[in-house]
Amino acid sequence: MLYLTRKAEFAASHYYHNPELTPEENARIFGKCNNPNGHGHNYTLEVTVKGEIDARSGFVVDLRQLKEIMNREVLEAMDHRFLNKEVPEFARQIPTAENIAIAIWRRLSNKLVRAQLHRVRVYETPDLFVDFYGEEGDRE
Amino acid sequence: MLYLTRKAEFAASHYYHNPELTPEENARIFGKCNNPNGHGHNYTLEVTVKGEIDARSGFVVDLRQLKEIMNREVLEAMDHRFLNKEVPEFARQIPTAENIAIAIWRRLSNKLVRAQLHRVRVYETPDLFVDFYGEEGDRE
Amino acid sequence: MLYLTRKAEFAASHYYHNPELTPEENARIFGKCNNPNGHGHNYTLEVTVKGEIDARSGFVVDLRQLKEIMNREVLEAMDHRFLNKEVPEFARQIPTAENIAIAIWRRLSNKLVRAQLHRVRVYETPDLFVDFYGEEGDRE
Amino acid sequence: MLYLTRKAEFAASHYYHNPELTPEENARIFGKCNNPNGHGHNYTLEVTVKGEIDARSGFVVDLRQLKEIMNREVLEAMDHRFLNKEVPEFARQIPTAENIAIAIWRRLSNKLVRAQLHRVRVYETPDLFVDFYGEEGDRE
Amino acid sequence: MLYLTRKAEFAASHYYHNPELTPEENARIFGKCNNPNGHGHNYTLEVTVKGEIDARSGFVVDLRQLKEIMNREVLEAMDHRFLNKEVPEFARQIPTAENIAIAIWRRLSNKLVRAQLHRVRVYETPDLFVDFYGEEGDRE
Amino acid sequence: MLYLTRKAEFAASHYYHNPELTPEENARIFGKCNNPNGHGHNYTLEVTVKGEIDARSGFVVDLRQLKEIMNREVLEAMDHRFLNKEVPEFARQIPTAENIAIAIWRRLSNKLVRAQLHRVRVYETPDLFVDFYGEEGDRE
Repeated sequence: MLYLTRKAEFAASHYYHNPELTPEENARIFGKCNNPNGHGHNYTLEVTVKGEIDARSGFVVDLRQLKEIMNREVLEAMDHRFLNKEVPEFARQIPTAENIAIAIWRRLSNKLVRAQLHRVRVYETPDLFVDFYGEEGDRE
Repeated sequence: MLYLTRKAEFAASHYYHNPELTPEENARIFGKCNNPNGHGHNYTLEVTVKGEIDARSGFVVDLRQLKEIMNREVLEAMDHRFLNKEVPEFARQIPTAENIAIAIWRRLSNKLVRAQLHRVRVYETPDLFVDFYGEEGDRE
Repeated sequence: MLYLTRKAEFAASHYYHNPELTPEENARIFGKCNNPNGHGHNYTLEVTVKGEIDARSGFVVDLRQLKEIMNREVLEAMDHRFLNKEVPEFARQIPTAENIAIAIWRRLSNKLVRAQLHRVRVYETPDLFVDFYGEEGDRE
Repeated sequence: MLYLTRKAEFAASHYYHNPELTPEENARIFGKCNNPNGHGHNYTLEVTVKGEIDARSGFVVDLRQLKEIMNREVLEAMDHRFLNKEVPEFARQIPTAENIAIAIWRRLSNKLVRAQLHRVRVYETPDLFVDFYGEEGDRE
Repeated sequence: MLYLTRKAEFAASHYYHNPELTPEENARIFGKCNNPNGHGHNYTLEVTVKGEIDARSGFVVDLRQLKEIMNREVLEAMDHRFLNKEVPEFARQIPTAENIAIAIWRRLSNKLVRAQLHRVRVYETPDLFVDFYGEEGDRE
Repeated sequence: MLYLTRKAEFAASHYYHNPELTPEENARIFGKCNNPNGHGHNYTLEVTVKGEIDARSGFVVDLRQLKEIMNREVLEAMDHRFLNKEVPEFARQIPTAENIAIAIWRRLSNKLVRAQLHRVRVYETPDLFVDFYGEEGDRE
């Protein structure tokens, strides 16, 4: 069993707001992230897949295929977008790094052919990131 | 003469649009950066000052003062903002990395006390950055 | 279950010395780290917490609270300090990256409110780091 | 139980080719990596060991010893080499990052004295890496 | 006058050998880089152009055009190649970082339309890089 | 004319104190850096040399020689040291990044054989660095 991780970047904007809360609560909980005009990040995405090595190729996964899936399912939808307005998952969910990681997991998990999705990591800044291992994926 | 550089980060969103151009021209020139909802970046700012060492302190510049000036003049205005809508310089100028570097230069250049502003560098992504050395500052 | 990691840096000095060993043994085991004047590092700390997403905020943990706890419990005690002389844990324990990670775990583990501490990672240099998952936390 | 990771770099060249496949299949599966002249990378190796802290030293592992083992078993064999031609493991196995990680695991796993090998990570580029936890080491 | 820098990476192999020297001299001067099988690097290329801002676009240079020129003139020729054998400049010149920087300068300098080439930087490893400012471009 | 830069790291501790100032002035100017026990950093040193390419080798400078000079003149003196107490230059000068850069320039400038020293850069942290171009070396 091997684990292979591929990184990609996307530039997007977002803001945090829960319509069921009062403006005061939104301001208190989300601070300057509550600005409705949005602000943005260079998100770094790390997708880890696991599987056995294919003896013919020495690969756990076809790298070009993995890249295409990441481009088609994630980058085309999220790169250069205002996540709250333009990505369906965030019409009702706040696009925190946590929810972005879950959304990316769901977009990718049933698209992989040979290998299995193991982890989605989303860096919002170089100093803050979130890991998701799937609905049943408590790490221990 | 010594050169001291301090980095800072800010997260902002922007989009590229010139109202004097047709929609087709805007789309052609700016591509996906023309999306009016905006998209964002973790901008990295490098501010370089130059000066003589102060013999009493061994400093070219008081680091806390430099940090305060950068926070007050740049980060408070630009961090967690939609640059086109919320930063006055970009009401009429397109917030490209080039114009952001010039705007930051103008905000900082006359605020420094002992040392002189030498260079403003703005990274839009880890792979793209712009340097500005002032209006008269052709590098050679 | 999601895992969120926040980084912070602190600059500290330390040296390695076991008073129960002879000077020769200390020199042999610790090499140039045995210099009693100390030497220093920019330590990078990564704190990982795990928990369920809070539906109201989309957060696993309140990021400002996490930052405050890390500042109060770790950075105020260790930043710009000589660890051997100024941090109580290292009055009797050698401040290796291993022992620093354990000390930070103990300082943080019962301070978190909603989420649970999952991992403390301490980089002594960019090329050397230690992970601690708690007293009962064998990784597998 | 603590986990300590040490990084090292080596510069090597490789190419991908399976002699049991036709030229067309090799070209299709491996693309430009199939160029028989080879191409190269600055590989980054991360070796993670796990163990209990030694009370006398505060170490999980003797760092100089770990460095020597990594140098002797891996870097002397692979640094500044054409992996396909000069490293025995790759006479018959394609030197993908996956197979390099396995080869390094086998070179290191029985050489460690006090601590146990936990993980070998090989970065082929900053955006692509593989983790191997040993033959029996499914991560979960 | 503004300076804009764009990075790109390419993976290539090379070796150092001067046919006019004896084998002993080659070994002494080039050490393990003299291995005729070659070894490789993830080269990082930074291309800096300078120019005035175009008022219509806010750009010093059309970024897509710059990317295309870098891809066509440099990456297609050098990525996944054995430089000594497959890149014409290195049929007679040793592909040191110095000579690679000069070759890239010559490939790019007359291809830029609006802006002027200012600097070519080539990283052979994260710890070693070369800057070239053109034939007449002594930096001071 | 080409510019070649080599990086190296050293771990050292220091503190800031001017004996001609009152304790109150020292505290005000230097803040927590005034702690007499010292604190430390992983300093990153970049040494840039300039020169013509040697046609025989394709090198501006012999890289092994440059490395040896940096090790002998800088790292052996400063690595794993308390700069104030153990490095002669800092017996009377405050070891700020500015003064460290000047001290390293003076240690290196007359040791280079073929190439000329062009710049010494010292990173105290990833976010703060100083450049020195020599006594007569105003950058413009």
